[in-house]
Amino acid sequence: MIKISEIFGPVIQGEGMHIGVPTVFVRSGGCDYRCSWCDTMYAVDKKFAGEWRSLTNDQVLAEIYHCSPRPILVTLSGGNPALYDFADIISELHEHRYKVTIETQGSVPRSWFRLLDTMTISPKPPSSGMKTDFLKLSECMDGLPPMHIALKIVVADDADYDYAKHVADMFPAVRCFLQVCNPNPTSNGDLARDLLGRLVWLCDRVLQDKWFTATVLPQLHVLMYGNKRGI
Amino acid sequence: MIKISEIFGPVIQGEGMHIGVPTVFVRSGGCDYRCSWCDTMYAVDKKFAGEWRSLTNDQVLAEIYHCSPRPILVTLSGGNPALYDFADIISELHEHRYKVTIETQGSVPRSWFRLLDTMTISPKPPSSGMKTDFLKLSECMDGLPPMHIALKIVVADDADYDYAKHVADMFPAVRCFLQVCNPNPTSNGDLARDLLGRLVWLCDRVLQDKWFTATVLPQLHVLMYGNKRGI
Repeated sequence: MIKISEIFGPVIQGEGMHIGVPTVFVRSGGCDYRCSWCDTMYAVDKKFAGEWRSLTNDQVLAEIYHCSPRPILVTLSGGNPALYDFADIISELHEHRYKVTIETQGSVPRSWFRLLDTMTISPKPPSSGMKTDFLKLSECMDGLPPMHIALKIVVADDADYDYAKHVADMFPAVRCFLQVCNPNPTSNGDLARDLLGRLVWLCDRVLQDKWFTATVLPQLHVLMYGNKRGI
Repeated sequence: MIKISEIFGPVIQGEGMHIGVPTVFVRSGGCDYRCSWCDTMYAVDKKFAGEWRSLTNDQVLAEIYHCSPRPILVTLSGGNPALYDFADIISELHEHRYKVTIETQGSVPRSWFRLLDTMTISPKPPSSGMKTDFLKLSECMDGLPPMHIALKIVVADDADYDYAKHVADMFPAVRCFLQVCNPNPTSNGDLARDLLGRLVWLCDRVLQDKWFTATVLPQLHVLMYGNKRGI
C-alpha cells in the first residue's frame, strides 16, 4: 500500500530537467524532512494525513491510466516518494511505454531507483533548515548513469548558493539545476514579479561566478498560476 | 570574413533546448528570411548593415575569448548564421573545450553543421509570413544524431500550432520545443503578463491535444528583462 496525497495531470512540468514537458504527477504522502519553505506541506505534515489515501499498486496504476490513457512521463513526487516501493508500478508503466521520473531529496536510497528513466535529486540548502546526509545522497545516484540524473537545488540566498556549488562540485558528471526559491508558498497573490526578480539575481550570481555548468530556472507553473495546487 | 551584428555574454540562454544555461552569443548579420515578428531585425534588415562589422575568424574568436576566457557554450545565431562558414571557428573552440550550438531556421544546409555539439532548427510558422523548404530543412539535420538536434517553433495562433504538429510529425526522433510568440518585439513595456497568458494558452492546447512529446517554453530573458538587447 502507498499513501497517496494526489494523482493529477496531464500538466506541464514547470521546473527542472523536464521543464516544459507534459507529465502526470503521483504525489505520495509523508516526508522525512520539514523544509521551512515546503510548497507541498499538504503531502508532508501528518496533520493532513486524513486526506491521504492508502492505495494498492493496481489502484495507483488505474489512476495514472485514467489521467492519461496514452503513454506519458509519470513524475513520482511527494512528500518523499522514496518512503514507498514503486518498483512494480514502474515496471508495469514501462510495459505500457510510459516513462517514469522521480523528485526526491536523496535522503533514502532505494534499489528500485535503478528502474527509473530519469531522476531528480533535490538536496535541501541551509534556508530549508535541513541537514544533508551526503553518503545517502550519493547512494541514491548509484543505479543510474549520470546523464539521467539531475541535481535540483533551491537557492534563496548566498548561503544556499554556496551550498549548491559545494554539492555540484561533489558530483561533476551530474547536471545541476538551480531553482529560484518561492518563499511564500501559501500566498495566492501574483508572484511573477517577485520570482522574476529573484531569477535575475540568481542569473547574475551564476554569471559573475562564471559557473557555466549550472542551469538556472524558475518554476514556470508558479509564474503562470501562482501557488495553485494540482497544476 | 563574417558579418557580425554583435558578440556578447556570458548571459543565460532564455529559450529552447539550452534554457537556463550560461552562453556567449555570436550574432551574425544578414538573413534570407523576413519574419513578421522578427525580434532581431537589427541583425536581419540591410538598413542596419552599417552597424555590422566584417571580422576574420581570429577576430571572432578573440571576442568570444574576451567575453569568456573560460570554456562555455557558444551560441551561433543571427540573422541566419548558416550564411557564413563557421567551420574553423568551431574547430578552434573545441580545441579549447568550448561547446558550440546554433540557432538557424533550417533554410541553408551547411556541411559544417556536423561539427556542432547541438543544433536548434527553428522553421518559421505561417504567422511569420515565410514558407518552409522541407527538403532543405531535412538536409540541415543530416549531420547530427537526432538527440543533439531540437526543433523550436514559435506558436502565435492555431495555424502555427497545426504547422508545428506537422513538422514534429515529420521528424519524430527530434525533440520539438514550442515557444510562445513575442508579438511586439520592439515594445519596451512589461511583457511578462502578456507572455505568461500566452504560455497558459499554449500549455492548454498541447495538453488538450495530448501532444506529450512536445516541450512548451517561454522566453525567460523576455520575462526577466523585456525586449532589451544584449541579454
